[in-house]
Amino acid sequence: MKIVIAPDSFKGSVSAIDAALAIEKGVKNAFPNAKTVMLPVADGGEGTLETLVTVTDGQKVHTKVKGPHGKEVNAYFGVLGDQSTCVIEMAVASGLNLIEESERNPLLTTTYGTGELINAALDKGYRNFVLAIGGSATNDGGVGMLQALGMQFKDKDGNEIGYGGGELGKIHHISTEHFDQRIKESTFLIASDVENPLVGEQGASYVFGPQKGATDEMVKVLDQNLLHYANLVEDITGVRLHDMPGAGAAGGIGGSFLAFFPSDMKRGIEVVLEYAKFDESLNDADLVITGEGKVDFQTAYGKTPMGVSQAAQKKGIPTIILAGSVGENIQNLYQYGVVGIFSIINQPMSLDEAMKEAESLLETSVEQICRTYFWNQVNQ
Amino acid sequence: MKIVIAPDSFKGSVSAIDAALAIEKGVKNAFPNAKTVMLPVADGGEGTLETLVTVTDGQKVHTKVKGPHGKEVNAYFGVLGDQSTCVIEMAVASGLNLIEESERNPLLTTTYGTGELINAALDKGYRNFVLAIGGSATNDGGVGMLQALGMQFKDKDGNEIGYGGGELGKIHHISTEHFDQRIKESTFLIASDVENPLVGEQGASYVFGPQKGATDEMVKVLDQNLLHYANLVEDITGVRLHDMPGAGAAGGIGGSFLAFFPSDMKRGIEVVLEYAKFDESLNDADLVITGEGKVDFQTAYGKTPMGVSQAAQKKGIPTIILAGSVGENIQNLYQYGVVGIFSIINQPMSLDEAMKEAESLLETSVEQICRTYFWNQVNQ
Repeated sequence: MKIVIAPDSFKGSVSAIDAALAIEKGVKNAFPNAKTVMLPVADGGEGTLETLVTVTDGQKVHTKVKGPHGKEVNAYFGVLGDQSTCVIEMAVASGLNLIEESERNPLLTTTYGTGELINAALDKGYRNFVLAIGGSATNDGGVGMLQALGMQFKDKDGNEIGYGGGELGKIHHISTEHFDQRIKESTFLIASDVENPLVGEQGASYVFGPQKGATDEMVKVLDQNLLHYANLVEDITGVRLHDMPGAGAAGGIGGSFLAFFPSDMKRGIEVVLEYAKFDESLNDADLVITGEGKVDFQTAYGKTPMGVSQAAQKKGIPTIILAGSVGENIQNLYQYGVVGIFSIINQPMSLDEAMKEAESLLETSVEQICRTYFWNQVNQ
Repeated sequence: MKIVIAPDSFKGSVSAIDAALAIEKGVKNAFPNAKTVMLPVADGGEGTLETLVTVTDGQKVHTKVKGPHGKEVNAYFGVLGDQSTCVIEMAVASGLNLIEESERNPLLTTTYGTGELINAALDKGYRNFVLAIGGSATNDGGVGMLQALGMQFKDKDGNEIGYGGGELGKIHHISTEHFDQRIKESTFLIASDVENPLVGEQGASYVFGPQKGATDEMVKVLDQNLLHYANLVEDITGVRLHDMPGAGAAGGIGGSFLAFFPSDMKRGIEVVLEYAKFDESLNDADLVITGEGKVDFQTAYGKTPMGVSQAAQKKGIPTIILAGSVGENIQNLYQYGVVGIFSIINQPMSLDEAMKEAESLLETSVEQICRTYFWNQVNQ
């Protein structure tokens, strides 16, 4: 009996790694001799770097960069176990989690630090990149990141513009003359589930601006500025980011990667499973157990449990999904070879209690689920 | 695929019958063609009459009797589908649920109405009785019940004593002369899980008196009175109720049945399963689903899920147990062929919410459990 344990984190409660350990305990309670493979995952958002570094036995390389407000922060990039692929997690340098709620203002926040991280990795000789761009505090179209890599954005007086989405309207001329030449020797795989275009009502500013602190008035300015930027980019590259799917990811940094980098964009969970070599772990497995804090009808549109199930299904292996909270209309997950979707909650309790007890709840529920799934196999 | 659905009630939330219907929906969601057998059960406490009448296609016979305080109440006894067995549920005539909390006083409450129910059934010609004695408001040793059936309890002046456990100390002489002769032509099967003796610190008054409204002072009086009564019973019958297991059930009425009735006492759940013909329902079943509001380590000591599992195990059929609340150390249930023990709760919520949503929670959790249990059978 071989069981692959591949949960995401249970947000605000347990990390993917601790969730996997608790699930393993539950499996062993039911079947002490079961073989387990631990493969905590993430869907390309925050935690992706941590996950990929851990499961591939890689390491983190620490460096200081400019945070979203230009102040220095301690950051790092990841090097996977292959010693060749770098993971850049944008949230580490330009993340919403780095600033106070009162400081959120995408007119001012910059992606400069993300560019510095890429630069630091290039300096170490790395040329293969995975970019996890969830959790950003920015709406600057990735201009800060490009500035850190040598691109120049001059105003009408020939001066370099400042940081933040509020500055983009001032750009008069973009110069790629000093843009880091190493970029075009590299490959960039962007892990992103966002399919929004750069500008307009479905664009970065309107859809994601408010959660980064933009008021209605700011959203309008930010969108106009991104439009201005997109026009200039089209002029010099011929690439039209305006309505390109994915260009609106992470405050528009998606667009800059697509325009100026040798890049490809894939669903986060697909990227994670590919680099974590999930397929290899599945060989001879009888069952996959995955899960995350909340599972509902949206899970089938690209979250970790869906990605894990789909990958397992391709190898003919069924999946059990665990969650703290199981919503309605989850039946759309059945198409991915999902056996059952279970809440770990074992009695009426508050969210706080559930979060505090998540590990023991995972353990006890998994014991019951494994007994049930394997009952006929074991008792025949 | 045949599934036997045999839940108890989820107390304060759904009746056993509604629980069974919700479970059936969940089974059908997973496997529309599954054959289901509905067998809502009870463990011999309140609801036993309702359950047995329903599952055997019997009926209720209504009559008026004296309630716990001597005031008339609408009551009924059950006649099972065999048209020969009567079910008397003590709580219907002498139950705690018939009086306000402020009126609880076992010095005053009487089992007279329970005797009247037996009398009414005897009048209709019935001679086979199942007695469900849970939920009583009384501590009168069953003396009221005996009075209703013609037994006389005289004080030292030759006057019949009044009602309630407070009167027993006055008994000077017990006369069986006018005791209903039809009793000895009958059989009485007492459904009770209580093994307490009649008197002493493990007796009816000390253990169950307080929950019926007895103060510490009252408990002492009630226990002394039961001791006096037990001494008199021993004098005239030779039966020593003092430390007889089960004599302390339902305020001591257990003792009176054991002393004066052709009676046998069995665990409630055993009686229910026997009369509901549970064994016959199990033929060719693949799985049994049972459950009740709360399952914990005590469940293994004779509650419905344990009784159902044990009976199913004897026929080689595994059982799934459902509960609103699943406690700790439930592994002692595994010995009864229990596959898994699952909470129906699907996200953090209050007890109130869980009770309100119990039916849909049962349905959705059963869908997942059935998919999981039968997965390999269905997908091979």
